[in-house]
Amino acid sequence: MQVSFTVAEISDIVQPKETRGTTSETIRGIASLGSAEAGELTFLGNPKYRSEVAGTRASVVLLPLGFDGQPQSNQIFLLVENPSAALARICSRIEQSLWPRPAPGIHPSAQVAAGAKIARSATVGPLCVVEADAVIGEHTHLQAQVFVGRAAEIGEGCWLMPGVTLAAECILKDRVRLQPGVIVGSDGFGYEFVGGRHEKIPQVGNVVIENDVEIGANTTLDRARFSRTVVGEGSKIDNLVQIAHNVTIGKHVIICALVGIAGSVTIRDYAVLGGQAGIGGHVTIGPGAKIGGQTAVTFNVESKAYINGSPGMPYMIGQRLQVLYRRLPELFKRVDEIEAMVRKS
Amino acid sequence: MQVSFTVAEISDIVQPKETRGTTSETIRGIASLGSAEAGELTFLGNPKYRSEVAGTRASVVLLPLGFDGQPQSNQIFLLVENPSAALARICSRIEQSLWPRPAPGIHPSAQVAAGAKIARSATVGPLCVVEADAVIGEHTHLQAQVFVGRAAEIGEGCWLMPGVTLAAECILKDRVRLQPGVIVGSDGFGYEFVGGRHEKIPQVGNVVIENDVEIGANTTLDRARFSRTVVGEGSKIDNLVQIAHNVTIGKHVIICALVGIAGSVTIRDYAVLGGQAGIGGHVTIGPGAKIGGQTAVTFNVESKAYINGSPGMPYMIGQRLQVLYRRLPELFKRVDEIEAMVRKS
Amino acid sequence: MQVSFTVAEISDIVQPKETRGTTSETIRGIASLGSAEAGELTFLGNPKYRSEVAGTRASVVLLPLGFDGQPQSNQIFLLVENPSAALARICSRIEQSLWPRPAPGIHPSAQVAAGAKIARSATVGPLCVVEADAVIGEHTHLQAQVFVGRAAEIGEGCWLMPGVTLAAECILKDRVRLQPGVIVGSDGFGYEFVGGRHEKIPQVGNVVIENDVEIGANTTLDRARFSRTVVGEGSKIDNLVQIAHNVTIGKHVIICALVGIAGSVTIRDYAVLGGQAGIGGHVTIGPGAKIGGQTAVTFNVESKAYINGSPGMPYMIGQRLQVLYRRLPELFKRVDEIEAMVRKS
Repeated sequence: MQVSFTVAEISDIVQPKETRGTTSETIRGIASLGSAEAGELTFLGNPKYRSEVAGTRASVVLLPLGFDGQPQSNQIFLLVENPSAALARICSRIEQSLWPRPAPGIHPSAQVAAGAKIARSATVGPLCVVEADAVIGEHTHLQAQVFVGRAAEIGEGCWLMPGVTLAAECILKDRVRLQPGVIVGSDGFGYEFVGGRHEKIPQVGNVVIENDVEIGANTTLDRARFSRTVVGEGSKIDNLVQIAHNVTIGKHVIICALVGIAGSVTIRDYAVLGGQAGIGGHVTIGPGAKIGGQTAVTFNVESKAYINGSPGMPYMIGQRLQVLYRRLPELFKRVDEIEAMVRKS
Repeated sequence: MQVSFTVAEISDIVQPKETRGTTSETIRGIASLGSAEAGELTFLGNPKYRSEVAGTRASVVLLPLGFDGQPQSNQIFLLVENPSAALARICSRIEQSLWPRPAPGIHPSAQVAAGAKIARSATVGPLCVVEADAVIGEHTHLQAQVFVGRAAEIGEGCWLMPGVTLAAECILKDRVRLQPGVIVGSDGFGYEFVGGRHEKIPQVGNVVIENDVEIGANTTLDRARFSRTVVGEGSKIDNLVQIAHNVTIGKHVIICALVGIAGSVTIRDYAVLGGQAGIGGHVTIGPGAKIGGQTAVTFNVESKAYINGSPGMPYMIGQRLQVLYRRLPELFKRVDEIEAMVRKS
Repeated sequence: MQVSFTVAEISDIVQPKETRGTTSETIRGIASLGSAEAGELTFLGNPKYRSEVAGTRASVVLLPLGFDGQPQSNQIFLLVENPSAALARICSRIEQSLWPRPAPGIHPSAQVAAGAKIARSATVGPLCVVEADAVIGEHTHLQAQVFVGRAAEIGEGCWLMPGVTLAAECILKDRVRLQPGVIVGSDGFGYEFVGGRHEKIPQVGNVVIENDVEIGANTTLDRARFSRTVVGEGSKIDNLVQIAHNVTIGKHVIICALVGIAGSVTIRDYAVLGGQAGIGGHVTIGPGAKIGGQTAVTFNVESKAYINGSPGMPYMIGQRLQVLYRRLPELFKRVDEIEAMVRKS
C-alpha cells in the first residue's frame, strides 16, 4: 500500500464533526491502534478497544462522536459519526491508486472472435479470450487472461480479474466483480446410473449473476441442468465456494469461504452462511437465516433461524447439548454411584 | 439456453409410446412442472411431483408409461419409458448447439513447442500452451488458455476446458472431460522434518486418468511421490476436490464437491463420497461403500458400508447415537430424579 | 517418470556405507517393497514393512544400517543411514530431468508492461502477463500463463507454475514455490451492512510471502484490509486452502488441504493444521500446536496443544467423550433398569 495524505486531505475525505489537537505528520500508512506508528492513521472501530486509544502512537485517530479523551502532542483526533465508514472512504481513495482505472480498448494480444460485441468504454486486457456472440458492456474491465465463452453477456461496470472463466451463454448483470480464478458456468454434476456406468445428464442451462454481486477467488458456480443457476443482487460470496447446478441465491446473501451448496438449493435474501458449511440438495434456507461454520444442513431452515453443528440444529439447543456432552464423564460416574447404592439397598 | 423445437422434432428425439392431446406451440425452453410456461417443455421425473402435472402450463409434458390423466387444451402429453432419460436426450441435442464441435487445428495464438505431437483432428484453442514432447490425440479439444506440460499425454476425444493445467508427464486416456481450472499433476504435499525445517520430498511420479473420467472445476490432483496417482475408468469428480499424491481411485466412483482425500488412499469401484467428506491417509474405502457428507474417515471401510459423521461411524449406529444425544437433557433430568429418590429412601 | 540409472550411478548418489549382493539390472523405476519389479528400486522407509524386504522383487533395495538379511540373486542391498533421505536424493536427481532448468529470457508471447524490472537470469514463460513496475528477481521462473500485477515484487529463485496470479503490490521473497492456480492478493472478504446492503470495505493492504514457502494448487490468499497478510519463512501450504485477509502465519507451519483460516488469525511457528480444519476470526494458534482434520477452532490455542473435533477441544478430552458417546445406548438402558429397580422398591 503506497499512501501519502496530509491531514487536510484526510479531513476533506472524512469530514469530521469535531477535531482535537494537531499534527505536523504526513500520513503514509494505516494500522490498528496497538501497532500504529507516528506517520500513520488509526481508528476506533470497535468499542472494546477504547482503552487502547490513550496509548496509540498514530498521528491521526478516527473516533466516534462523543469520545471522551484528549490527544497527545503532535496527534490529532478526528471525531466522525462512524469511524469504520470514514476509514473505508480513505481506503476507497487508496484503492483508486492501487487499481487505477484502465484505458478502454482491446489489448492487441487478446483473442476476440468475430461477432463479439464489446462496448467502446470497455477494457479487454492482455491474453483474454472472447468467443463469438459474447456481449461486453460499457466500462467493464476484463483484466488479463480472462475467458468469456460463446454468447455470454456481461453488463456495465463489471470487473473480471485475471484468470476468470465465464462459460458460454452465462450472464453477468451490472457492477459484478469476480476475483481471480472464479469459474461461472462449469457443468452441473449430474449423472444417471445406467448399466453399471454413470451416464452424463447434459447440463444445458446457464448461470445468471445479478447486479452488485462479488465472488471470491477460485469459487465455482455450475450451470443449471436446464433453466438457470442464480445469484441475486448484492450477494457476496467468498473464496473457494461451490455453488451447484440450479441453486437460487437471493439478494444480499453472505456466503463465507469453502461453503458447499448442493443442487437445487434455495437460499433466501439476507441469509448468512459461515465458512465450510454444507447445504444438502433441494433444501431451502429462509430469509435472514444464519448457518454456522462447518454446519451441515439437510432440511429446510426457517426465516431468521440460527443453525449450527454437523448435523445442524437450532443454535440454543446445540449449545445446551454440547454442555451436557462435556458432562458425560460426570454422568457415567453418577450412574455408577446410584446403581451401587440401589444394588446395595 | 437457446432452444427452438417443434413437437415433431421432440417426438423424433424421445420416441413416445403414446401421445395425448396436441399443441401448436414451438418449444423454446425447459422448466420444472411448477414453473414452466406455455412454449416450454416439462417432465415428471420423480413420482412425488405427480400431483403437479394437472396444473402445469407447459405445452409439452414428458410422462411415464401408464400415467393416469389428460392434457389441457393446447398441451400434449408424451408417454415414454423413462421421462428423465428422454429429457436427457433432448438436452443432449441442445448441448450440441451449446457446445458446437470446434474446427480442428491449432489456433495461431497457441504456443506449441517443437516436438509436441498433435493429432490432425485435434483442436488447440486460443492461448493454449503445449510443451515439448506432449502428445494430443484425435478429436481432443483444448478449448482455451489450457496448459499441457512436457511429455504429457492426452488420448482421443478429450475435452479440456479453459484454464486447465495438465503438468509434465501426466496422462489422460480417452474421452476425459476436465472442467475449467482443473489441475492435474501439482506436487504432492510431502516434507521431511530435518533440522527445524520442512525439507521437500521430491514428487516425481505422475497422474493417470483413465477413460471416461470427468473432473469438476478447480479440482486438484497431485502427482505421486514416485509411481502414479490414478483415477479409474468412468469415475466422476465434482468441483473443488483435493486428491493427494499416490491416491488410487477405482472405476465408476462418485466424489462430490470439496472432498479431501489424503495421500496413498485407495477408493474402490463404485464407492460414493458425499460433499466435504475427508479421507485420512493410507485408508482403503471398499467397493460400493457410501461416505456421507462432511464425514471423516480415518479407518478402512468395508465393501458397501455406509459411513457417516465426524468421526465417521456406520450410519445406523450414528443415527441411533444422534437420537440419544438429543435426549441428553431428559437423561440428565431423569438421573437427577432417580438420585433424589434413592437418597431419600 | 522417465528414469534410467545404473547401480553405480545410484551408489554415487546415496553413498552406501555397506553393500550386499550385485545386480546387472538398469533401474527404470521406483516402487514400494510389495509392488516393485525387477529393474526397479525400492526402500525400507518405515520399520513396520521390514518383513516385506525378503520377498521384494526390486533389483536395488535401500536399507537402514544394521539391517539383518541377505539379498536374493541379481539383487543388491545398499545400506545407508536414512533410506528415506537417500531415496529423496535419487528423486531429487529425477526431479531435475522432470523439471529441466528453463533458459533465461522472456518468451515472445509474454506481455510485459513497460516499467517492469525483470532480472537477466529470470525466465518469463509463454503467455505470462507482467504489469507495470513489477519486479522479478534472479533465477525466478514464471512457467506459463502466470499473472504478475502492478508493482508486485518477486525475489530470487522463485517458481510460479502455470496459471498463478500474483496481484498488484504483493510480495514474494526468495525461493517461493507456487503450484498451479495459486492466487495471491485477492480482495479480503469485508463488508459493512449499510441501508440493507453490504457495502464493500476496500481492501488495500497486500500479501507478503517469506523465503522458502511453498503453496499448493488453487490455494487462495487474500490481501489485507490495510497492512499485510503474511506467510512466514519455510511454511508449507497444501491445495485448496483459504487464507483470509490480515492473517499472520509464522515460520515452518504446515497447513493441509481445504483448511479455511478466517480474517486476522495468527498461526505461530511450527503449528500443524489438519485437512479441512477451520479457524475462526481473530484467533491465535500457539507455537507447535496441532489442529486435527475437520476441527473447528474459535478460541485461542496454547503452545503445543492438540485440538480436535467440531467444536474443537483438547484431544484427550475429546477422545474420552467419544468413547462415552458411543456408550450412550448402554447408559440409557442402565438408567431404565435402575429406575425400574428404584420405583419397584
